[in-house]
Amino acid sequence: MIKTDILIIGAGPTGLFAVFEAGLLKLKCHLIDALPQPGGQCSEIYPKKPIYDIPAYPEILAGDLTHKLMEQCKQFEPGFTLGERAETIDKQEDGTFIVTTNKGTKHHAPVVAIAGGLGSFEPRKPIIDNISDYEDKGVEYIIKEPEFYRDKKVVIAGGGDSALDWSIYLSDIASEVTLIHRRNEFRGHLDSVEKVQELKNAGKINLITPAEVIGVEGTNKIEAITIKQDAKTFKKECDHFVPLFGLSPKLGPIADWGLEIEKNAIKVDNSLDYQTNIPGIFAIGDVNTYPGKLKLILCGFHEATLMCQSAYQIINPGKRYVLKYTTVSGVDGFDGTRKEAPKAVVKAIQ
Amino acid sequence: MIKTDILIIGAGPTGLFAVFEAGLLKLKCHLIDALPQPGGQCSEIYPKKPIYDIPAYPEILAGDLTHKLMEQCKQFEPGFTLGERAETIDKQEDGTFIVTTNKGTKHHAPVVAIAGGLGSFEPRKPIIDNISDYEDKGVEYIIKEPEFYRDKKVVIAGGGDSALDWSIYLSDIASEVTLIHRRNEFRGHLDSVEKVQELKNAGKINLITPAEVIGVEGTNKIEAITIKQDAKTFKKECDHFVPLFGLSPKLGPIADWGLEIEKNAIKVDNSLDYQTNIPGIFAIGDVNTYPGKLKLILCGFHEATLMCQSAYQIINPGKRYVLKYTTVSGVDGFDGTRKEAPKAVVKAIQ
Ligand SMILES: Cc1cc2nc3c(=O)[nH]c(=O)nc-3n(C[C@H](O)[C@H](O)[C@H](O)COP(=O)(O)OP(=O)(O)OC[C@H]3O[C@@H](n4cnc5c(N)ncnc54)[C@H](O)[C@@H]3O)c2cc1C
Ligand SMILES: Cc1cc2nc3c(=O)[nH]c(=O)nc-3n(C[C@H](O)[C@H](O)[C@H](O)COP(=O)(O)OP(=O)(O)OC[C@H]3O[C@@H](n4cnc5c(N)ncnc54)[C@H](O)[C@@H]3O)c2cc1C
Repeated sequence: MIKTDILIIGAGPTGLFAVFEAGLLKLKCHLIDALPQPGGQCSEIYPKKPIYDIPAYPEILAGDLTHKLMEQCKQFEPGFTLGERAETIDKQEDGTFIVTTNKGTKHHAPVVAIAGGLGSFEPRKPIIDNISDYEDKGVEYIIKEPEFYRDKKVVIAGGGDSALDWSIYLSDIASEVTLIHRRNEFRGHLDSVEKVQELKNAGKINLITPAEVIGVEGTNKIEAITIKQDAKTFKKECDHFVPLFGLSPKLGPIADWGLEIEKNAIKVDNSLDYQTNIPGIFAIGDVNTYPGKLKLILCGFHEATLMCQSAYQIINPGKRYVLKYTTVSGVDGFDGTRKEAPKAVVKAIQ
Repeated sequence: MIKTDILIIGAGPTGLFAVFEAGLLKLKCHLIDALPQPGGQCSEIYPKKPIYDIPAYPEILAGDLTHKLMEQCKQFEPGFTLGERAETIDKQEDGTFIVTTNKGTKHHAPVVAIAGGLGSFEPRKPIIDNISDYEDKGVEYIIKEPEFYRDKKVVIAGGGDSALDWSIYLSDIASEVTLIHRRNEFRGHLDSVEKVQELKNAGKINLITPAEVIGVEGTNKIEAITIKQDAKTFKKECDHFVPLFGLSPKLGPIADWGLEIEKNAIKVDNSLDYQTNIPGIFAIGDVNTYPGKLKLILCGFHEATLMCQSAYQIINPGKRYVLKYTTVSGVDGFDGTRKEAPKAVVKAIQ
């Protein structure tokens, strides 16, 4: 059982900044995310694209924003349960919560902050009847650990940046990389498209287009796929089949937690602290809705900050918290590090 | 008469970010500030100190934050009335407002956003009976334009960073710089204290400590000051006397505009758009109060953003605004510049 002060569901920009703000109040956080990496939409959908409306950043790549947020909260040593979906929540008699993931990992905390964005990112799957039989038996929709594919025969399907970038990356690791796409045209960064062309010319990536994978087979694990190209159908041996058709967010299990839902978002009836209809459960960032709500990153930052104040009250009942400026009081990390402004000197001039 | 869409009172971080958010909605802004430079508390009180809780900035100097915000909103060509205090507001029959400063400058806008922080920064003045007779006649409390002091005899009083830094700066411009402080000890950045010591040793700054200026005199403008040092009293000729005893913010005239005031702040009874009890007048950033309010820079950013949505409705009645992501739609400046993400290519691989 993982224990923490604030359990945050969703490690997008809102969840990550909540770790920092909670840390200033000496509260510890643990984050659960269905994705294998933190950053939410920013790291999954548009890491290489610039954002122009992060305050005081005339321009920042979404991936860099994620790195900066990770760096900022590092001092407060957040825990992570990545690649797992928060599935159920159980309120305990003492008012605390136990949240269990689809893989059975249990988390215990007095406060739960749902920073789930548009929902837990779930892969779009190819329509192949028995594909679910091979999930985690050679069929993967997300690449978590490239080393897993060392010296293996890998088939990647898809026509976007993920399919291109992973084909490039794995061409150095896997014994064979095959890229299959239903068109000849790929959609992605120019460099990536050109690099794949180069690797294909050099014989380091097999390209099969326009084509589709229509079957998977194998005894205990995947052993081959069936490919349809024009009129013909043929088989190809492989150890892994990785369809990268994009991830789409689904509010999913959270929709059944007894929270008031409106327009696929969790209703918070005040913007004092973004608490939901269940005391102790907050909803911050893209996942919530209230009058005037804007689904912007900078709004998530504000919501996370106000939420932490109420979390503090729940965790430290009756204790008054006096807001401190970081500039004046410095920042004390849970890892023993301290950041502080250089002190002014008081010195005579003779 | 200066005309604009949103008239912003206060060019602190909140006001500056409002310019950017308004610009995204194609609304033009003009800012009034009592200080001679933008940045509010950040530029006036602690420009060289680090802030640790600006989202995605593990550390940023308050002065650099101001620069970044200026850079971000530059595309939207804000107008500035600096060094003047907004004094009166008059609601016109058509619902628009005219705001007049202490120097008589008039501004006309359909929406007023008060981003006045803790109030308009007013200098702490030395207690010298007739000093007000010499204001703008050789007595200045803020240095707006260093060139103004070229080849003049300048006396600076004070013991903090402003007094130190301006003495250093003017030692190259003025014909004579005298620094007077009531103690021998100065309080400031080590470099500044050491630099003043050096310039004093080199005869480029006259230092008179511990001492106090107790009188000013002159016919049409200042001609000399009276200094008290220990038991003796003596006169010193000068063209300028600049007491730099710090600025302190005062809500001032805004308190009489008919707005609901609570704890020296303007009450906004909702956090949907931070509108005050007078429709068309909003209060954002440190200057407002509502349940759960935190006087933090990041909260001002959020408030400014939501305010702009309602300002848009007032200025474009009945027109629906659909939120656009800057990443997806790019940013079109009023100066003709455009920022946009590099487009993905769609390209065949053969
Ligand atoms: C192409 C694009 C461009 C954009 N441009 C801008 C822009 O210019 N400016 C701007 O402000 N915003 C922009 N946005 C929106 C911005 O990305 C979102 O507002 C922001 O990501 C929301 O952050 P969040 O942390 O609230 O949620 P998210 O980033 O969505 O993160 C939520 C995380 O929660 C996880 N999660 C949800 N449910 C569960 C569960 N049950 N179990 C485990 N994990 C779960 C998800 O997997 C996800 O990683 C853009 C979005 C897109 C797609
Ligand atoms: C030493 C110190 C350290 C701080 N550290 C932090 C920190 O670590 N993190 C954080 O988030 N915040 C910190 N703050 C607070 C932060 O600076 C404020 O929250 C922020 O400056 C508020 O921005 P604002 O734009 O709302 O108002 P301000 O910065 O106060 O700007 C308001 C401006 O309005 C002008 N004004 C007001 N009335 C009038 C008028 N009638 N006419 C003309 N001009 C007018 C003023 O002159 C001023 O320039 C700190 C503050 C101080 C003093």
